[in-house]
Amino acid sequence: MSQFDRHAIDQVFAAADSMVPFANRQRVTRVLEGAILGNMFFEPSTRTRVSFGCAWNLLGGEVRETAEIKTSAIAKGESFYDTARVLSGYSDVIVMRHQIEGSVEEFASASRVPVINGGDGSNEHPSQALLDLYTIRKEVSDRGKGVDNLRIALIGDLRYGRAVHSLCKLLTLYDNVHFTLVSPPELSLGDEYIEEMRGAGHEVVESSDLQAGISHADILYVTRTQEERFPTQEEAERYKGLFRLNQSVYTEYCEPNTVIMHPLPRDSRGNANELDNDLNENPNLAIFRQTDNGVLIRMALFSLILDVADKVEDTARDVSWYTAKRF
Amino acid sequence: MSQFDRHAIDQVFAAADSMVPFANRQRVTRVLEGAILGNMFFEPSTRTRVSFGCAWNLLGGEVRETAEIKTSAIAKGESFYDTARVLSGYSDVIVMRHQIEGSVEEFASASRVPVINGGDGSNEHPSQALLDLYTIRKEVSDRGKGVDNLRIALIGDLRYGRAVHSLCKLLTLYDNVHFTLVSPPELSLGDEYIEEMRGAGHEVVESSDLQAGISHADILYVTRTQEERFPTQEEAERYKGLFRLNQSVYTEYCEPNTVIMHPLPRDSRGNANELDNDLNENPNLAIFRQTDNGVLIRMALFSLILDVADKVEDTARDVSWYTAKRF
Amino acid sequence: MSQFDRHAIDQVFAAADSMVPFANRQRVTRVLEGAILGNMFFEPSTRTRVSFGCAWNLLGGEVRETAEIKTSAIAKGESFYDTARVLSGYSDVIVMRHQIEGSVEEFASASRVPVINGGDGSNEHPSQALLDLYTIRKEVSDRGKGVDNLRIALIGDLRYGRAVHSLCKLLTLYDNVHFTLVSPPELSLGDEYIEEMRGAGHEVVESSDLQAGISHADILYVTRTQEERFPTQEEAERYKGLFRLNQSVYTEYCEPNTVIMHPLPRDSRGNANELDNDLNENPNLAIFRQTDNGVLIRMALFSLILDVADKVEDTARDVSWYTAKRF
Repeated sequence: MSQFDRHAIDQVFAAADSMVPFANRQRVTRVLEGAILGNMFFEPSTRTRVSFGCAWNLLGGEVRETAEIKTSAIAKGESFYDTARVLSGYSDVIVMRHQIEGSVEEFASASRVPVINGGDGSNEHPSQALLDLYTIRKEVSDRGKGVDNLRIALIGDLRYGRAVHSLCKLLTLYDNVHFTLVSPPELSLGDEYIEEMRGAGHEVVESSDLQAGISHADILYVTRTQEERFPTQEEAERYKGLFRLNQSVYTEYCEPNTVIMHPLPRDSRGNANELDNDLNENPNLAIFRQTDNGVLIRMALFSLILDVADKVEDTARDVSWYTAKRF
Repeated sequence: MSQFDRHAIDQVFAAADSMVPFANRQRVTRVLEGAILGNMFFEPSTRTRVSFGCAWNLLGGEVRETAEIKTSAIAKGESFYDTARVLSGYSDVIVMRHQIEGSVEEFASASRVPVINGGDGSNEHPSQALLDLYTIRKEVSDRGKGVDNLRIALIGDLRYGRAVHSLCKLLTLYDNVHFTLVSPPELSLGDEYIEEMRGAGHEVVESSDLQAGISHADILYVTRTQEERFPTQEEAERYKGLFRLNQSVYTEYCEPNTVIMHPLPRDSRGNANELDNDLNENPNLAIFRQTDNGVLIRMALFSLILDVADKVEDTARDVSWYTAKRF
Repeated sequence: MSQFDRHAIDQVFAAADSMVPFANRQRVTRVLEGAILGNMFFEPSTRTRVSFGCAWNLLGGEVRETAEIKTSAIAKGESFYDTARVLSGYSDVIVMRHQIEGSVEEFASASRVPVINGGDGSNEHPSQALLDLYTIRKEVSDRGKGVDNLRIALIGDLRYGRAVHSLCKLLTLYDNVHFTLVSPPELSLGDEYIEEMRGAGHEVVESSDLQAGISHADILYVTRTQEERFPTQEEAERYKGLFRLNQSVYTEYCEPNTVIMHPLPRDSRGNANELDNDLNENPNLAIFRQTDNGVLIRMALFSLILDVADKVEDTARDVSWYTAKRF
């Protein structure tokens, strides 16, 4: 995430804006016809994997894919260096997810083609952070505000949630953001992040009280307990369901039109349920707009990396099949 | 399956007929170039998954895919509602298979794009039933008969076989079908199906005698013991191999030209072997024509759902590579 | 591999040469637009699976894929005959990998479309052998030599390494090859291979001394202990790390410019490490040129099988997106 400054972010967001007619199935482009994405997910994922693949397809390219580690040479003792050298001979861009922190950076340094981090362990998930920020900007701008001076409450597992980590880094680039961090002490955000945020002049308040934490915010960013990152399942269970947002809590404690976000998946099982289904009809629930924005952001990243952002229209035409209303 | 009446079925079959030159690799169409299929198989499948994907590719579209549940957010407690909302932002149509009965209907009700049921537990498998009926119609019409007044013997695991369930519902729409149900009592067809069939005026005979059951039929529809649906493997073993059809049984008991069908896979292990390999050269063995017809039916469904059935020819051209004789 | 004679090999290599601009992302062709590859990997693989898929995509075709056996009907007792009959209705060509020796041949005999062996157990891996031979020819020709009179040392697990088996068969077609086989006695090359090589007039020397074995060779072909083929993990562990090549061994014992090859993945874990990372900057390390050549060879095979090798240019155009320098 530290490769991005505000100018780069603005570029990505402008490109994302221009992708709406394509993601919305009004227009088709073939600008990347013949190009191949290596969609290398060495850790299980449906959402992010399909989102990246779909974004690439919408630009006209083909996807070659891996959906788990055990079908991989890495399981036979291959180094990231070798895997990168090999796979980068097969595609024009690689998206990589792996459960080891720092793995993607090591991989990228040996790759002969550009590499996008699709999530590396508890470390970072930059495309998620970009789509989160893009969503924040859109949502608060609909309400007459901007990212500067934003009041955001981050709620839940802030320790293992890589989406949170990357988002905090991004928001740090803006001015005077007010962060409220609501988590059990054991799952609090790492000191290195907090220091960086404070060092850049932002206000950071830590709390383990949900109701106080959400009462003066523009954005509530709720997260799932990342149980797959805990040493044991028992330990993960201890933290599930500690903070639950539902319509009545929202009505009682939040300002009107407070936006609700979540990197998804939300855990809807009874013992977790951090974001209740009774919020589904609340127009301020932005979680599905968020995931839709992910396609735009990933199309933008691909088009900028491959230097085709201004050529997308060259091969564009109207869609000629039935398309459902989507956005 | 209950969404289909005879008129809708005729529409699907007419569209399927028009797809032959494309499935047979004589012609290529690009009518869905730029469209994306979300091929979401949360239960293992090769045949059906690849058949749907291939049908989509033959119309010119791209496929994004999931081949198993554990790589999915559902495993992290995500509701079908959420999964549907998210995935429907990625594709133009979704095919979904899941082992929970009713899951696809729940999913479809939250999806923003059309959803096709690729099989939900022991419940239904409608595209299989359509290809079965399409095959029946073709096979008996070659023999001068129709689906009305059909005599069909359904053999084997009628309890857990979802292909059987969907096929019975479809056949119920026709006139005066004679059903012979051959199964061990514990694996008999559910009463609700039988009542529906009888209520519509069809004759239904239950039997646990293979030889009597197959002796006056136009179609033998043999099924595999759906061992993966049984509470325990031991219980499944008890029912394997109870009814076995081979060439000598066929010759002795069946009328000439009785058509043999099977939803596949057939279990060719010695302890099962419900349909012997010595039937492979029997011209009345329609099981591979059946699976080939699956591509036609799925192309037809896609083209009708996306309203391009009459535009397929607009982008069509002759194939220019070597193609094996197939149908 | 025995289907190939020197004339056929020359044809493949000529076609592979012509694929360089496409694999190198300078040119795009759509010659197989509309064609479908059935990429059926019933044994885990990333490299070979993605390499075949990528080669097909680079010719303009679509890929339908299976990445493991358990999602397959074969796990439900389906015969290779049935699987082949079914899957060959879905695609124009099939690539198949399976852990059972001879499985691919059995499958191919029932398939209605051409089948390429992507590796069958410890038996053969012909596309790997072709890319290995293509690499050998390129590398030694850069050094003024040919495949006739080649001196090659094969090192490591020669018993289970199917790439070695197929390569030996291919090299046997040439004249006067000098083979040095370096392995522990328990992992030596099967007698049937050695007899064939000697019967064709080649010199074969067996050794369990790495230093002697590598000292007079044009090519070192190093292999990984194929631990997944051993009866037990313990047995596999016994043979790991017996022969290790690193830069200082290379400098002390090899002739200048001896080419180092490996079918990959190399096992870089401390207890194995058959090819040390300190060789990565050695210009004679050809392992990544080898894997890049795999795309060319697979494109060549597809284009010859489908009879489009001379039509590739008909639909070709320059690439219009950013491409990294690759070869």
